[in-house]
Amino acid sequence: MKRDDILNGALLIGLDNLTMKNLAEHLKVGTATLYQYFENRETLLMEAAEYSIKLLPFPDYRGQGWQEMALEYTKNVQKILKQHPSFIHSHPVTDYGYKIHFTLTEKILTDLVSCGLDAKQAIKVAHIITMASYGGAVEAIRQERLPLNGANIQSYISSQFKEMDSDEFPILSENIEDFILSAEDKTDFLLRIALANIQNEFEE
Amino acid sequence: MKRDDILNGALLIGLDNLTMKNLAEHLKVGTATLYQYFENRETLLMEAAEYSIKLLPFPDYRGQGWQEMALEYTKNVQKILKQHPSFIHSHPVTDYGYKIHFTLTEKILTDLVSCGLDAKQAIKVAHIITMASYGGAVEAIRQERLPLNGANIQSYISSQFKEMDSDEFPILSENIEDFILSAEDKTDFLLRIALANIQNEFEE
Repeated sequence: MKRDDILNGALLIGLDNLTMKNLAEHLKVGTATLYQYFENRETLLMEAAEYSIKLLPFPDYRGQGWQEMALEYTKNVQKILKQHPSFIHSHPVTDYGYKIHFTLTEKILTDLVSCGLDAKQAIKVAHIITMASYGGAVEAIRQERLPLNGANIQSYISSQFKEMDSDEFPILSENIEDFILSAEDKTDFLLRIALANIQNEFEE
Repeated sequence: MKRDDILNGALLIGLDNLTMKNLAEHLKVGTATLYQYFENRETLLMEAAEYSIKLLPFPDYRGQGWQEMALEYTKNVQKILKQHPSFIHSHPVTDYGYKIHFTLTEKILTDLVSCGLDAKQAIKVAHIITMASYGGAVEAIRQERLPLNGANIQSYISSQFKEMDSDEFPILSENIEDFILSAEDKTDFLLRIALANIQNEFEE
């Protein structure tokens, strides 16, 4: 049993549901073994949370522009939130301590500064990344619940709309194709619009 | 017993948890009484969902500009999502039919067109309203879970940050005041940035 095995086990169970008992059962050891490595549940949670950051598939700086970097971060954060919807409501900040939150933020800011932004600009872009990731994750989760049965989102929602009385929806009737966007396209659209303006602001 | 009493009762219980049995118990009537008004649970759910739209505190057109209208809508949708976090994950579209979704969208589009946008512009702004509302609601829910004990969000997070080793967070250390924004300010910021750019696009 290595320290990393315990941390990986904790992440597999999910930090929200973690107890020393269910983790020990999962790893087929006694709880005493866990306490050899970690003083208590809180210490383990905290370390597992920090460890999880290292596992995140975050972009690296490889010469891309800050807009591209922001887009990559947003897609990654959105993907994680979509895979773990409980992260949207739960608050790792209160549950596992603040360090994970600040560590992640500092990493994003550092990468944006590598791309040529100053610190204050990077903070503005980080806020946009956060909000667009949240919005995109919610939209993705909602769209995933649609019973598409293999259809794409456009043809599925269009077919739903055809069942409505079009007189009740004059604007939508004329523009339904423009209205239906995948979660990914909505996120890209928001990010493109927001970052284009912030770029103008930075250049002034 | 009036039809509206049943619908109000249904909304009070919450549509996600609604059964004919628990609604009848709540209203202190027999389920047979409910079936006098509504053929089945699905019909009741659908009508209650449409009825709920009428109760929403949405802005009216009173001569304001489209940016102001968009801000009012975003704040209202965000507020509803914050009060009913289950709306964020649940999907009224699948559960209560599509009509509520299209009705709400048509209302937003109609109001934006009243403010002077054309239909295609209004659809772009509606997407921004949706995404900003989702992002803002998630941020608000997360911030609400912080144990502020009467402190504001700035002083609370600053005090958490003071406990960190500042050498590990060089960018945040220098800019922590800029980094901490209330959920409301983050939403306003995103909306302002996104709408300012879209306005430029519309004027071109």
